[in-house]
Amino acid sequence: MISIIMGSDSDLPVMRQAADVLRELSVPFELTIVSAHRTPERLFEFARKAHERGVQAIIAGAGGAAHLPGMVASLSPLPVIGVPIRSSNSMDGWDSVLSILQMPNGVPVATVALDAAKNAGILAAQILGAYDEQVRRRIIKYKEELAEGVAVKYRKLEEVGYEGYVK
Amino acid sequence: MISIIMGSDSDLPVMRQAADVLRELSVPFELTIVSAHRTPERLFEFARKAHERGVQAIIAGAGGAAHLPGMVASLSPLPVIGVPIRSSNSMDGWDSVLSILQMPNGVPVATVALDAAKNAGILAAQILGAYDEQVRRRIIKYKEELAEGVAVKYRKLEEVGYEGYVK
Amino acid sequence: MISIIMGSDSDLPVMRQAADVLRELSVPFELTIVSAHRTPERLFEFARKAHERGVQAIIAGAGGAAHLPGMVASLSPLPVIGVPIRSSNSMDGWDSVLSILQMPNGVPVATVALDAAKNAGILAAQILGAYDEQVRRRIIKYKEELAEGVAVKYRKLEEVGYEGYVK
Amino acid sequence: MISIIMGSDSDLPVMRQAADVLRELSVPFELTIVSAHRTPERLFEFARKAHERGVQAIIAGAGGAAHLPGMVASLSPLPVIGVPIRSSNSMDGWDSVLSILQMPNGVPVATVALDAAKNAGILAAQILGAYDEQVRRRIIKYKEELAEGVAVKYRKLEEVGYEGYVK
Amino acid sequence: MISIIMGSDSDLPVMRQAADVLRELSVPFELTIVSAHRTPERLFEFARKAHERGVQAIIAGAGGAAHLPGMVASLSPLPVIGVPIRSSNSMDGWDSVLSILQMPNGVPVATVALDAAKNAGILAAQILGAYDEQVRRRIIKYKEELAEGVAVKYRKLEEVGYEGYVK
Amino acid sequence: MISIIMGSDSDLPVMRQAADVLRELSVPFELTIVSAHRTPERLFEFARKAHERGVQAIIAGAGGAAHLPGMVASLSPLPVIGVPIRSSNSMDGWDSVLSILQMPNGVPVATVALDAAKNAGILAAQILGAYDEQVRRRIIKYKEELAEGVAVKYRKLEEVGYEGYVK
Amino acid sequence: MISIIMGSDSDLPVMRQAADVLRELSVPFELTIVSAHRTPERLFEFARKAHERGVQAIIAGAGGAAHLPGMVASLSPLPVIGVPIRSSNSMDGWDSVLSILQMPNGVPVATVALDAAKNAGILAAQILGAYDEQVRRRIIKYKEELAEGVAVKYRKLEEVGYEGYVK
Amino acid sequence: MISIIMGSDSDLPVMRQAADVLRELSVPFELTIVSAHRTPERLFEFARKAHERGVQAIIAGAGGAAHLPGMVASLSPLPVIGVPIRSSNSMDGWDSVLSILQMPNGVPVATVALDAAKNAGILAAQILGAYDEQVRRRIIKYKEELAEGVAVKYRKLEEVGYEGYVK
Repeated sequence: MISIIMGSDSDLPVMRQAADVLRELSVPFELTIVSAHRTPERLFEFARKAHERGVQAIIAGAGGAAHLPGMVASLSPLPVIGVPIRSSNSMDGWDSVLSILQMPNGVPVATVALDAAKNAGILAAQILGAYDEQVRRRIIKYKEELAEGVAVKYRKLEEVGYEGYVK
Repeated sequence: MISIIMGSDSDLPVMRQAADVLRELSVPFELTIVSAHRTPERLFEFARKAHERGVQAIIAGAGGAAHLPGMVASLSPLPVIGVPIRSSNSMDGWDSVLSILQMPNGVPVATVALDAAKNAGILAAQILGAYDEQVRRRIIKYKEELAEGVAVKYRKLEEVGYEGYVK
Repeated sequence: MISIIMGSDSDLPVMRQAADVLRELSVPFELTIVSAHRTPERLFEFARKAHERGVQAIIAGAGGAAHLPGMVASLSPLPVIGVPIRSSNSMDGWDSVLSILQMPNGVPVATVALDAAKNAGILAAQILGAYDEQVRRRIIKYKEELAEGVAVKYRKLEEVGYEGYVK
Repeated sequence: MISIIMGSDSDLPVMRQAADVLRELSVPFELTIVSAHRTPERLFEFARKAHERGVQAIIAGAGGAAHLPGMVASLSPLPVIGVPIRSSNSMDGWDSVLSILQMPNGVPVATVALDAAKNAGILAAQILGAYDEQVRRRIIKYKEELAEGVAVKYRKLEEVGYEGYVK
Repeated sequence: MISIIMGSDSDLPVMRQAADVLRELSVPFELTIVSAHRTPERLFEFARKAHERGVQAIIAGAGGAAHLPGMVASLSPLPVIGVPIRSSNSMDGWDSVLSILQMPNGVPVATVALDAAKNAGILAAQILGAYDEQVRRRIIKYKEELAEGVAVKYRKLEEVGYEGYVK
Repeated sequence: MISIIMGSDSDLPVMRQAADVLRELSVPFELTIVSAHRTPERLFEFARKAHERGVQAIIAGAGGAAHLPGMVASLSPLPVIGVPIRSSNSMDGWDSVLSILQMPNGVPVATVALDAAKNAGILAAQILGAYDEQVRRRIIKYKEELAEGVAVKYRKLEEVGYEGYVK
Repeated sequence: MISIIMGSDSDLPVMRQAADVLRELSVPFELTIVSAHRTPERLFEFARKAHERGVQAIIAGAGGAAHLPGMVASLSPLPVIGVPIRSSNSMDGWDSVLSILQMPNGVPVATVALDAAKNAGILAAQILGAYDEQVRRRIIKYKEELAEGVAVKYRKLEEVGYEGYVK
Repeated sequence: MISIIMGSDSDLPVMRQAADVLRELSVPFELTIVSAHRTPERLFEFARKAHERGVQAIIAGAGGAAHLPGMVASLSPLPVIGVPIRSSNSMDGWDSVLSILQMPNGVPVATVALDAAKNAGILAAQILGAYDEQVRRRIIKYKEELAEGVAVKYRKLEEVGYEGYVK
């Protein structure tokens, strides 16, 4: 099971994309709010016990001085995926990215692109797919659909020409 | 098994830290050179077949316009961990970080900090540990040793005082 | 002939400017979608065969971790012009620029300014103009028209004064 | 009393400057190592109890994805001064600065310049000086000495001329 | 008492948040405009005398080449809290942040996040709380309310599910 | 023929790599100094007449506020390749890159990576190869040698293991 | 007399502020368009002859790879004031700033803040005021009015309180 | 007369280049230390009276949060030239540049490139040359010598070839 957490409910429009893609890939998940700075006790409780509850990977999203993913990673033996969020209080996202990415030796966070909660969900599924053949097959299929989606577009573009193409 | 690849043998002093920590954690791995820009055929061959050979996660390191991790991720269903390298031809590492991190929707790369191949190795082990209880236990032990290493230092520091402390 | 490719149809509003200016300069071209990350096989097929089909230069546009121009350059002996695009998933374009520009030794991409597909078209024409006298003459004329366009403006500005000037 | 903490003993050459200036200003202090990522339990213990032990302000220094100052600030009611450190694993210090500075509403960290542990010490003294007249007088005197130090230099420079001046 | 100053009345929508939170915490304050560049005499007069009037800490906000906090800090023995403002004439706030943060040795400014006047107010209260037990208790209560605010949200989110949750 | 120019003889250690690779590819070239800021008349003379002398593409390298490539491009109908140089007076190369890359509509400069004069030479050859079959064949061969160079390394690495591999 | 030039009529809304303030300070000026990249001959003609026509200082504004101020400075013995413009084709203004500011030794450009054409006008007046007592007096008066403008605001703010103050 | 000031004697190796070039151009100058942050009274005294002592332009150099040039500009009607210095406590010079450049409307600072004190000296001479025909002639001659210096080099380079050229 994947656990999706975020620092604030203002992160939900971004972070729900992780949930949506996990649902699409039939991967079970939970989703809640854990604020590193406003509920540090909850953060500790959550991070230390997640693996005992059957969680296999954690997706954590936060903006600005984004300490949630890194602090979860310091407390949990599970792989932690960090989603930097370009929140209203961030400096164009650079603070979110660097606060999540630049973890010291010993405590990695698997960082995805700015606001890329969808990719965090796919990555979580790939992590399960490292052992779970069924999940892996769904990922292979997902990628084939991505390719097919592009194919539909380039065929149309080549057929109607770029001036006639309405996106 | 984990596969560690890098764009050039000049990346070896950084990337071997992934191998070293995997060995420390008793996780089997392979290590080789695959250049996205100089050996694109090899890249294709490698990335499309890795999961059929029993590889469960891939660690890919590269510098500058670092396309190796992202191209592997586009071709493989496995989780791909990207290590941005501050190579001699990079702009202080910003190009390496952004080229690896900012992947489009559908194709995540689990990016770690600049030059943080050690963390890539730990993350790969954590990915296996999502299912493999033995690996997870080794990670828990590894983290306890990290904490104990800090404890040795702060005890000494508190004992001898900061002026007497020689790092 | 010039081949114009882009990673997604969302790049079309920018990339069609390359097509428009090539048409204006009477240079034949083709235009399609090739996604490095979603259709890597198509990328390989396209890039390895383009020069055999009579293509003389390739214009490739992409945003975020923009690997399309560099991967085409690694597979084709043709000059490749890269157009960094400030797409919705980019970090103000810095990721697009650095992912395209900072190619390693041996595999250049001729990078133009952010979103500057028009300049990519002109550059492609200049490349043909290195041998083709007719194309070069059209470029010389194009530049004279640019200068004349400015002249119309400064004459009007000097005549009516800056307060009366309506752009 | 002021408490000075840092993430690693490699931060000691910078952070001891806070201790040195506090000693110079006759302000009592303690100094130790608390790693947010390697000893999170110790961090919690320290931060929640510091004010009960008579600590009045905390100086916390860290590099890279520097979570120590912000996590202490989330757990303690005391003013927390953050010192971003340009450690070997940082991206020229930008990650350290942004990870410490860009705290969310409700949880401030009083950030000083990169590597400016000395200023952190002075700021801590100024905080005590908000109530303690004696400390404030020492700060006023400290500033007068700064001015006098400059005066010695410009007098010499004006006397001997810039070509004769040996710094 | 806390003194809140800003470089221009265009900073008022940001800076009044410091006043609002101080009122909420029952900390007395004053608020006015002092421009470092347009009223330097007033700046001198203000900064040199603030501590004689019973001011215990100064909050100074400014944008662009933001010299107000640093110049006040050079003239006053009080702790100075700087608020970088992303004003219309700033380069996305980077100039404001660096002009306030990067003070030389001897003259600290306690810098908070971009536009984070609210945090400046809280920090000012924490400074008073270093001695004033009553203020500290209010800060502890304020932090508990923050945590409770998050709890209300995560309980609702867990109850209704992320798809039913309206922020 | 290719013309290689640079703003100062301090750029020669970088820019001669363009000459070296052109020699390797049997492409005729000339090389000289043209300073946009110190010899503007020479710049005008050079740029307006280059195509009349049989020059087919121009490689221009400069550092700092690097105006040479752009000004040549404004005066010549030829394709201009710009090499940003991390000179002693540059801000880590960012000024060089942006001054060369961000040309306005109508006047492209084909920009290569920072200090990548070698790639500028290869790109110039590729431009000739758009028409000249012989040059193109040499480029194909050059790329094959690049791939073979990598192959030598990965075979050795796989044979001796990463610990025995001495770069 | 001051000469105000700009690269394009799209720069006029910014650059006319230089004209407006010069008019306010009774300093004679001219204003026109000179494009470094589209009308290089006109640039040469303008820059080499400006001082012979009685021009005493030049204000030049441009965006993106902004070569106009630097090229004028290379051709004219007059002081050149550069105005970086955040034009639609610029990277948030960083390219404009660096292209104008980072001139090599021997060829200065007096750079003002991004889009700060008003300040360019004031600086031009100050340059004339270095000798012309009348202009200097007008600048002193202008600064007094700036201070008075602030005074009106802080008096109102102190009178009505920040909550009643409508900017 | 030109007045050259700097924030610290550690700036002297850079700032003396302004003095050297003014001497070369036979322009009288004075040089001293004025610290905005450590000697604010001296700054006020200096800046308010400089024009009464016959100073015609001021060159001010500083690093980090560099407030000296801007504060002098706020107090003096004279043109102020700012030299950003990459001092040991600066963030690669970005803080120095932005603190000096990004002045608000009404208070310009004529900013030159990072560490470009030589250009500050030339600019100061050009300011005098706006009225003083003799100084202007020396600047014209100085520029001719710059061009001649380049000519010596390209003639040698063209004569001996780039491989025989030893810089």
